[in-house]
Amino acid sequence: MSEAKQHVVIVGGGFGGLWATRALADADVRITMIDRHNHHLFQPLLYQVATAGLSAPDIAAPLRHILRRQGNVEVRLAEVERIEPLARRVHLGDGSEIAFDFLILASGATHAYFGNDAWAAHAPGLKTLDDALHLRRHLLLAFERAEADPDPAARAAWLNFAVVGGGPTGVELAGTLAEIARHTLRNEFRHIDPGQARVRLIEAGPRVLASFPDDLSARARRQLERLGVEVSTGTPVSDITSAGYRLGGEFVAARTVIWAAGVAASPLGRCLGAPLDRAGRVHVEADLSVPDLPHVFVVGDLASVDSDGKPVPGVAPAAKQMGRHAARMIRARLSNRPSTPFRYRDFGNLATIGRMAAVVHWRRLKLSGLLAWWFWLAAHVFFLIGFRNRLVVLLNWAWAYWSYQRSARIIFGGAQDEESPS
Amino acid sequence: MSEAKQHVVIVGGGFGGLWATRALADADVRITMIDRHNHHLFQPLLYQVATAGLSAPDIAAPLRHILRRQGNVEVRLAEVERIEPLARRVHLGDGSEIAFDFLILASGATHAYFGNDAWAAHAPGLKTLDDALHLRRHLLLAFERAEADPDPAARAAWLNFAVVGGGPTGVELAGTLAEIARHTLRNEFRHIDPGQARVRLIEAGPRVLASFPDDLSARARRQLERLGVEVSTGTPVSDITSAGYRLGGEFVAARTVIWAAGVAASPLGRCLGAPLDRAGRVHVEADLSVPDLPHVFVVGDLASVDSDGKPVPGVAPAAKQMGRHAARMIRARLSNRPSTPFRYRDFGNLATIGRMAAVVHWRRLKLSGLLAWWFWLAAHVFFLIGFRNRLVVLLNWAWAYWSYQRSARIIFGGAQDEESPS
Repeated sequence: MSEAKQHVVIVGGGFGGLWATRALADADVRITMIDRHNHHLFQPLLYQVATAGLSAPDIAAPLRHILRRQGNVEVRLAEVERIEPLARRVHLGDGSEIAFDFLILASGATHAYFGNDAWAAHAPGLKTLDDALHLRRHLLLAFERAEADPDPAARAAWLNFAVVGGGPTGVELAGTLAEIARHTLRNEFRHIDPGQARVRLIEAGPRVLASFPDDLSARARRQLERLGVEVSTGTPVSDITSAGYRLGGEFVAARTVIWAAGVAASPLGRCLGAPLDRAGRVHVEADLSVPDLPHVFVVGDLASVDSDGKPVPGVAPAAKQMGRHAARMIRARLSNRPSTPFRYRDFGNLATIGRMAAVVHWRRLKLSGLLAWWFWLAAHVFFLIGFRNRLVVLLNWAWAYWSYQRSARIIFGGAQDEESPS
Repeated sequence: MSEAKQHVVIVGGGFGGLWATRALADADVRITMIDRHNHHLFQPLLYQVATAGLSAPDIAAPLRHILRRQGNVEVRLAEVERIEPLARRVHLGDGSEIAFDFLILASGATHAYFGNDAWAAHAPGLKTLDDALHLRRHLLLAFERAEADPDPAARAAWLNFAVVGGGPTGVELAGTLAEIARHTLRNEFRHIDPGQARVRLIEAGPRVLASFPDDLSARARRQLERLGVEVSTGTPVSDITSAGYRLGGEFVAARTVIWAAGVAASPLGRCLGAPLDRAGRVHVEADLSVPDLPHVFVVGDLASVDSDGKPVPGVAPAAKQMGRHAARMIRARLSNRPSTPFRYRDFGNLATIGRMAAVVHWRRLKLSGLLAWWFWLAAHVFFLIGFRNRLVVLLNWAWAYWSYQRSARIIFGGAQDEESPS
């Protein structure tokens, strides 16, 4: 590849960045894809890694491997520290810098505590594989601690699980946790009954899965309750400490609080000098370029844009579509064709709740229960990248389905370690 | 279960401890199995986790799960700090203590640097899942660093891999590393050719796989060389630093040195007041009990015992057989039957070298190459605990075999992190 070619830098190897890169496969440009992890992550199944149903490598594939046959791409494992959009330079954590002609910023979002940063230490969130392994370790150790602790009050606190946030991730985590306690761990302990664990899902708003229609949301709640989850709506958590959480005046002793309540966009968005929304997302033009920076695009969870008068949701299909659109716009710029606005094609909304329970919303179709679950399963396995992963994941699902077992129940690190990230 | 029953404490959930526990399933005792990890580990495949061929959960299963239906066992996740064999007490890391009537000590071995403890920081070993994940991270990052480093000397040092120790683990690691460099990573980098990586296996003794007959050892060496491994015998490494290693007067710049040269028995053996061998193993009686402590048994890698006039090797089948024998001896004590000496049944010696290359020695049978590899594969998959693992591991093998790909190439932790254990 010649150095004279236009250089496209893509920051982030998630759905947005990866789909943009692939869409430029036969473009006459050279591409540098930068990510701080060496892998693309299939984020919709991350909660399964956190709850020991899948291994980390089941839902991740090395970016280099995915892109090995795309000759115009160089993959760079590095942290982006800063962007100078006008000088057209990206600064990396190792001190080096990379010049670009075009930039696609797809650095996504992370979990946010809305000004309560002290809660982060006590209520871990779930965005990366490291988060998932940390959470898995914490969940599995909680049952071990309960088994070993002779004090009934301390034991109860170890068996008290709260998930804050009733969106898809919170619902998935709470449903799966209830299953683990009631089925997976049955008969394995001698001093506790894991089935006595209390799993509570706390949503500050009026209903869980607020992005779904009212009736599906109600059905999801009933399915959760059938699995043994206590669902609390309408009241926000007002404090989280190492000992528990406060909800509506009551302090509940709980050693496990999981944060699934909110995301904030990647701080790299601030480098662009463009207006941001409340969550830190960049208000982009209709063609996904940044105002006054026609050579810079923002896609995925970091972008705030409307389509057909409605905000585009922060979901994987939207990120892929935006990635492809940004790639098309770069081709258009290169051949002096006009911009076109991004239009989101909505393929529906899915959320899983637990074993054989899910909700699906697509146009006028509304499904819940078993049928929705099969639909969800097929969609997720189909969209997993890489043949091996798909097959192994399917096998693990099938095995978990028949046996209620979870195959990745490994606690890394020693028994006596502090519960720091492992 | 009644508290009046004799209490058997088993320390260590490896092959020795787990097989002892199972052999006491229908004995009229209560058992406490203590391990500092929550899982039994199929150690013979640990090098596959280190080299990204398998996920950690593929070769590990929770001890609680394995033993859930054995009603006379309680599993305890804890570190044993100290043993008082005469007072019949075990002290745990959390400050609590456990009284026993019988003890089976099966706490195994760890890697040892023979007085060169400073080398530990630069030459990680491979005994636990955490070791394997640490090593995997280091190996994958070495190629990333080489790709990013513009200085040819620095780049060469990142692509220089040394494995110290020509036993089965060293041979497996060196062979697999050569395959990764030559095949797995092909086409994935733009500034380096991973095939140019230098993989050296360093054995201080005269030949690799010294526990095999001379001719199999020579065949193993040829198979290694065919895979691209430089084999160096007869000279020990005399220094290891962060910059490289010294061998026979020459200092070689290398950023990856892996320690597979020696093991030392668990320090818990010292609590027993019995004679130890050079590696710290406990010299036990013919029935595996400790001299003057007929209620204490040592099994597995921590035990030093002869069978048919030859020392019993530190391999998984020997540990299982010892575990079962110790269980039999406890039953004998309980019913006042006499002791019987342990006899090791040798099922042969296997070592794998790489894709389709292995050596097998069983009585007068000697195999090498493809046939030996199939033999090795069948034996290892067969002995893996748990249906799911066996199936998934087989699938991963098949996939790796056909494609040269390794499915667990995930670097945990950020790109900029220190290379501390992740």
